[in-house]
Amino acid sequence: SDREIVDLDDLEAAPASGVSWVDIQGFGNERLLVELAEIYGLHPLLLEDVVNVPQRAKVELHDDNLLIVLRMVRVNEDAEITVEQIGIVLGEDYVLTFQERYGDVFDPIRKRITAGHRRFKEKGADYLAYSIADSVIDHYYPALEVIGERLEDLEEEAVAYPTTAILQRIHFMKNRLLNLRRALWPQREALHSMVWETNTLVSEEVRLYLRDTYDHCVQTTEVIEMYRDMISGMLNTYLSSMANRTNEVMRVLTIVSTIFIPMSFLAGVYGMNFKEMPGTDWPWGFELFWALAGAVAIGMLVFFGRKGWLGSQDQKLEKPD
Amino acid sequence: SDREIVDLDDLEAAPASGVSWVDIQGFGNERLLVELAEIYGLHPLLLEDVVNVPQRAKVELHDDNLLIVLRMVRVNEDAEITVEQIGIVLGEDYVLTFQERYGDVFDPIRKRITAGHRRFKEKGADYLAYSIADSVIDHYYPALEVIGERLEDLEEEAVAYPTTAILQRIHFMKNRLLNLRRALWPQREALHSMVWETNTLVSEEVRLYLRDTYDHCVQTTEVIEMYRDMISGMLNTYLSSMANRTNEVMRVLTIVSTIFIPMSFLAGVYGMNFKEMPGTDWPWGFELFWALAGAVAIGMLVFFGRKGWLGSQDQKLEKPD
Amino acid sequence: SDREIVDLDDLEAAPASGVSWVDIQGFGNERLLVELAEIYGLHPLLLEDVVNVPQRAKVELHDDNLLIVLRMVRVNEDAEITVEQIGIVLGEDYVLTFQERYGDVFDPIRKRITAGHRRFKEKGADYLAYSIADSVIDHYYPALEVIGERLEDLEEEAVAYPTTAILQRIHFMKNRLLNLRRALWPQREALHSMVWETNTLVSEEVRLYLRDTYDHCVQTTEVIEMYRDMISGMLNTYLSSMANRTNEVMRVLTIVSTIFIPMSFLAGVYGMNFKEMPGTDWPWGFELFWALAGAVAIGMLVFFGRKGWLGSQDQKLEKPD
Amino acid sequence: SDREIVDLDDLEAAPASGVSWVDIQGFGNERLLVELAEIYGLHPLLLEDVVNVPQRAKVELHDDNLLIVLRMVRVNEDAEITVEQIGIVLGEDYVLTFQERYGDVFDPIRKRITAGHRRFKEKGADYLAYSIADSVIDHYYPALEVIGERLEDLEEEAVAYPTTAILQRIHFMKNRLLNLRRALWPQREALHSMVWETNTLVSEEVRLYLRDTYDHCVQTTEVIEMYRDMISGMLNTYLSSMANRTNEVMRVLTIVSTIFIPMSFLAGVYGMNFKEMPGTDWPWGFELFWALAGAVAIGMLVFFGRKGWLGSQDQKLEKPD
Amino acid sequence: SDREIVDLDDLEAAPASGVSWVDIQGFGNERLLVELAEIYGLHPLLLEDVVNVPQRAKVELHDDNLLIVLRMVRVNEDAEITVEQIGIVLGEDYVLTFQERYGDVFDPIRKRITAGHRRFKEKGADYLAYSIADSVIDHYYPALEVIGERLEDLEEEAVAYPTTAILQRIHFMKNRLLNLRRALWPQREALHSMVWETNTLVSEEVRLYLRDTYDHCVQTTEVIEMYRDMISGMLNTYLSSMANRTNEVMRVLTIVSTIFIPMSFLAGVYGMNFKEMPGTDWPWGFELFWALAGAVAIGMLVFFGRKGWLGSQDQKLEKPD
Repeated sequence: SDREIVDLDDLEAAPASGVSWVDIQGFGNERLLVELAEIYGLHPLLLEDVVNVPQRAKVELHDDNLLIVLRMVRVNEDAEITVEQIGIVLGEDYVLTFQERYGDVFDPIRKRITAGHRRFKEKGADYLAYSIADSVIDHYYPALEVIGERLEDLEEEAVAYPTTAILQRIHFMKNRLLNLRRALWPQREALHSMVWETNTLVSEEVRLYLRDTYDHCVQTTEVIEMYRDMISGMLNTYLSSMANRTNEVMRVLTIVSTIFIPMSFLAGVYGMNFKEMPGTDWPWGFELFWALAGAVAIGMLVFFGRKGWLGSQDQKLEKPD
Repeated sequence: SDREIVDLDDLEAAPASGVSWVDIQGFGNERLLVELAEIYGLHPLLLEDVVNVPQRAKVELHDDNLLIVLRMVRVNEDAEITVEQIGIVLGEDYVLTFQERYGDVFDPIRKRITAGHRRFKEKGADYLAYSIADSVIDHYYPALEVIGERLEDLEEEAVAYPTTAILQRIHFMKNRLLNLRRALWPQREALHSMVWETNTLVSEEVRLYLRDTYDHCVQTTEVIEMYRDMISGMLNTYLSSMANRTNEVMRVLTIVSTIFIPMSFLAGVYGMNFKEMPGTDWPWGFELFWALAGAVAIGMLVFFGRKGWLGSQDQKLEKPD
Repeated sequence: SDREIVDLDDLEAAPASGVSWVDIQGFGNERLLVELAEIYGLHPLLLEDVVNVPQRAKVELHDDNLLIVLRMVRVNEDAEITVEQIGIVLGEDYVLTFQERYGDVFDPIRKRITAGHRRFKEKGADYLAYSIADSVIDHYYPALEVIGERLEDLEEEAVAYPTTAILQRIHFMKNRLLNLRRALWPQREALHSMVWETNTLVSEEVRLYLRDTYDHCVQTTEVIEMYRDMISGMLNTYLSSMANRTNEVMRVLTIVSTIFIPMSFLAGVYGMNFKEMPGTDWPWGFELFWALAGAVAIGMLVFFGRKGWLGSQDQKLEKPD
Repeated sequence: SDREIVDLDDLEAAPASGVSWVDIQGFGNERLLVELAEIYGLHPLLLEDVVNVPQRAKVELHDDNLLIVLRMVRVNEDAEITVEQIGIVLGEDYVLTFQERYGDVFDPIRKRITAGHRRFKEKGADYLAYSIADSVIDHYYPALEVIGERLEDLEEEAVAYPTTAILQRIHFMKNRLLNLRRALWPQREALHSMVWETNTLVSEEVRLYLRDTYDHCVQTTEVIEMYRDMISGMLNTYLSSMANRTNEVMRVLTIVSTIFIPMSFLAGVYGMNFKEMPGTDWPWGFELFWALAGAVAIGMLVFFGRKGWLGSQDQKLEKPD
Repeated sequence: SDREIVDLDDLEAAPASGVSWVDIQGFGNERLLVELAEIYGLHPLLLEDVVNVPQRAKVELHDDNLLIVLRMVRVNEDAEITVEQIGIVLGEDYVLTFQERYGDVFDPIRKRITAGHRRFKEKGADYLAYSIADSVIDHYYPALEVIGERLEDLEEEAVAYPTTAILQRIHFMKNRLLNLRRALWPQREALHSMVWETNTLVSEEVRLYLRDTYDHCVQTTEVIEMYRDMISGMLNTYLSSMANRTNEVMRVLTIVSTIFIPMSFLAGVYGMNFKEMPGTDWPWGFELFWALAGAVAIGMLVFFGRKGWLGSQDQKLEKPD
């Protein structure tokens, strides 16, 4: 039965048939936490671990309880990613979950329990704990997809407008990934030990299920590694776009300067005040000057055209396949 | 006997003599999959693993079955590479294969079976499973060759036209390799555990064969690592070609400017309106001016020639040996 | 009882009830150290290890004593970070601490002992040793925060004023982090061995506490790794800012040159001394010249405007989200 | 006795006293190989491994034979390096060697055998196999020396002529090293397992000898790693030389432009057609102009001289020590 | 007793009381070496290992002897670093040392032995061997300090004069460090195995001493790693200084060009030969021209001043803290 409990006496009075799941959201009420620890006989260190955040993700055996500390990742409507701690305490016939803040990702589990899903009925507390851990890991996929989309947007912008602002956004993204990686990596170890280190609380059958959860956890860390490689590629693209831009500025300067500087020299020559200067008194002298200057300009343009400096650099190649 | 089965009753009715191989292509018909799982007594988790794609490559023992999840790589006529999951379920006297899509790489095995190849007759289901796994790994070589050819094309283009488009194609290639590596790496572990972890399903003799498959798998990952090194070398070539190009633009500007700017100054001097200016009324004044200007120009050209700035940079060296 | 001891006979005379903690600050008085070693029966090598600094962080068993060598990090008012060695010798019912210099980070522990904190009363010398080690590790957090703030300041400056001085400060910071990492890394191993290698001196219960200390130690090394990544990102930002600056200098040169060089040519043309030059005697000749020159200038400006070279590069994009 | 055998019946008839060594060069004659396998009772997989090239270097036990697959490196007169596979099959009292091509590096062994070298007489087939493996590894040193000399030549050229052709040769060299590394790395593992994994074919005494062979193998891989570091240093030198060159081009442009542009302006001023222009009718006007222009030029030269832009950059420092 | 022995018969005759130490310097006299091996019953392979240089550093058990091969580092007066091999053979009651060249670092040990230092008297051959190994490792510290000082000099020069010569010296230093690292790294493993692998020759007590030697060895490798990071930082500094220099050259060009080019255009305008040109006949025309030209120049200077291009880049920031 799914009840919201305010007073702990209610909890104690609750019929202990089957597996019970107590979900604590927010750690404000310290007295309540201490009472809860007494009811379930939790080790003081275990309680400290679940309420002092952030802890590294881990799986530890404390007397009759298995403590599972994981990182929950949530994406809100503005695509912001929040990393939050969740502590799962697995006992003989109960599961306690401790969440930093209100709101979680467990609604699908609650629905399946309320709907009387077969497996939840047949299996014990360890299956419930597995379901919760699995649900935590599965919620990484949408978060990673959001990050992936952002990375693609960033890459496009890095090619189009390689500004320092873009570079800072790339580094901001990189730091976010580093943080996520730091949160997820110990989880991998923790789940690994949960699958392969035997204890009486987790049955062989549930271990089989946990192997898949572990595999998913490994996959998420691999995706993060791949994203990191993409970001280092982006830095290359960025630097290359900047070099391209400098090159283009230089080319414009070079083309204009090298065409007009020789022509200016020619005009300067005919502007000299020598008494006797051949050409100045010819009838077609001025036209001849223009012919000469035009020849120089055209020669230069042909030279640049052959070097491929006249068109834009990026229209030279077809699209990548 | 090689039959295409639509109704599972046919399968059940088939004579169970020797080893049977059931090959499922496409996972659309869920009812059929469930019936198949019942006939062969497959663990529910095992069935989930083979039909939910993508799974990490792995080898897992489920009761009486060994589940082998591998990645199949196919190259089509347009040299596009597709990575696809294949699940192999090895039982006492049967092998089930689950493929994502229609069409596979197993025709050589089918032919050898139909031709009554000696080894297939003498050996059990484990040898068949080995043959399938070996065939999957062997099909990586043509795919890697296609990638290798593409890399060589890219390198040539990166030297000739170092544009941002080329850089993006290099990164595209790099990401493709990262993806392939991500698919292949767990396969290495999986095959390693299949060779060295003992179980009753795989005989010692087939393990000997599997060692070679494992070696091939290691070789493919090594080739991918080498390709990655080649790509990072390509990025260097790209950046160097860009720097080269900027350098060349600068050299043209410098040569033209430094030749004509002093000459223009000289022309400017003789264009001044001082009342008394030596030279303007000399009979050979104009010719003297040209001699002076020519001397400046030739001096500059000699200076640049000595610095080696006049020829193209890339004709200076013979071909690499 | 908390006494400052000058003469070692006092120490010997002290009632040995419960756990005694002797704290040695500064290693100047060699005679005293030797006497102390005799009183507690310390192994000569152990004494050498605690007084010869710097030692690598380690946990070693010497006969009846466990030697724990750690690095203490202190931040003073000027935000300078000092790394100092602390040697903890754990015996059956005593703890000896050897500090390089006067002043330490143990006042909270002393207060809790003096206040008769329950746990210190109930538990043995191993709990005291744990408290000291835990206190050492916990003092890394403020030091890391100071470094983190400095890194943020540096990043801002690297974007605004990318000078060689900033680069040197970045490298100075990087070397500091490398030094800190070098000091902390062996600590991780040392604590790991203290938690998992059994001996008679550290009880199972205290091992549970030490697991948390170990986790905190791992977290600090992870933060340092993250800072290192941030610094390598900063180097990218720095180089990009420098390239940006060069690009901007080039753009100014290119814009001014390419506008005025063609106009100057035009002026040069009309400064030539040809006898017959169309335009020079037209009534609106001079105005026509300006119209022509203006058209050239405006054409150039439009061209640059379209290329986006006229505005500042960094106002083009909104702030990062 | 050293005989060239064409017919296998000869071999069978040969007296089996002591250790026999059969050396097969080239794998053309398939029938002969099959017969040989039958005579010595070789496992079919073992035969496949030695004739299908390239295999990864490995040491495998097949029934009564130890298969050792190594890479042989040969340098010809043109300093070209060839990597070739050699398969060594060690039996109770025979050694079979399978070489891809004719010609090998075993002449010193043959000489020592023919000369009746003491150790070959006293020791068994395992010592012969060790001698062959040792000879293979020892032949890496000359090959590595050839590569080392090439690298030094390349470094000199990269400083003197930093062209894209040189960069391609650097990458060509790097790829060669990557290939060599890929061939040698598994050899390290293979020899390691040969030294430390016990089997009945290799005596304890020969294992002692093999430890040295293993050490040599490790040394060669270390040299290759060092060469790789040298190559990455070369890329830095290359990029720096290119930047140097661009800098030099820029300096020439800047020096010439900034000296002559102000002087040209001055000449332009006195070329203006104002009715009243002070100086044009002064007797020393023209000389005054030159004095002014000269002062500007000298001022600029002094400024550049102080900045150190006038001399060549590379003559400023003495030789490295 | 400390004697220089030329004839081996003397050695045999020497009283075997206590521990004897035979120190061989230079491997010229092969006959002597063979006789020595016979006297002490050395394994032929052991003898080969100590006289064939260079061997990798290692610790190996040969029958009744422990062979310790280490690298000795010596710094001469010119701060040149020599790496030399030392072979230590530890027997039941003797220690043999084999040095490549004359002169060593063991004088402090000899003095302590001659002075009858207590520990040498009480302890066995293993303590002597430890002392020698410890002395070898301790002599790395002065060598590392010399390298550290050189690195600091290099860093200063890399900022002040970023020439290709400096770059080559940086790479020269880097290669030296790589070589040193290659020599020291296997030593770490060797000492590790000497501390933790049990054998009858090294007592538990001496193992305790060896742990410190091992720690020192680890510290030296860590210092080398730190130096490598410093060198890669230096490469960044170098490239940044070069970019800075190019930027400065560009700034000078841009400032001078953009000030004088518009002014030259203005002068060119008034040098045109239009019949009617407003201003040329005004009484203050010439002064007006200068006012206009001055306004342009001042406007440009203000623009550059605001951009911060006028001062030197490196005086903008205070010294790093």
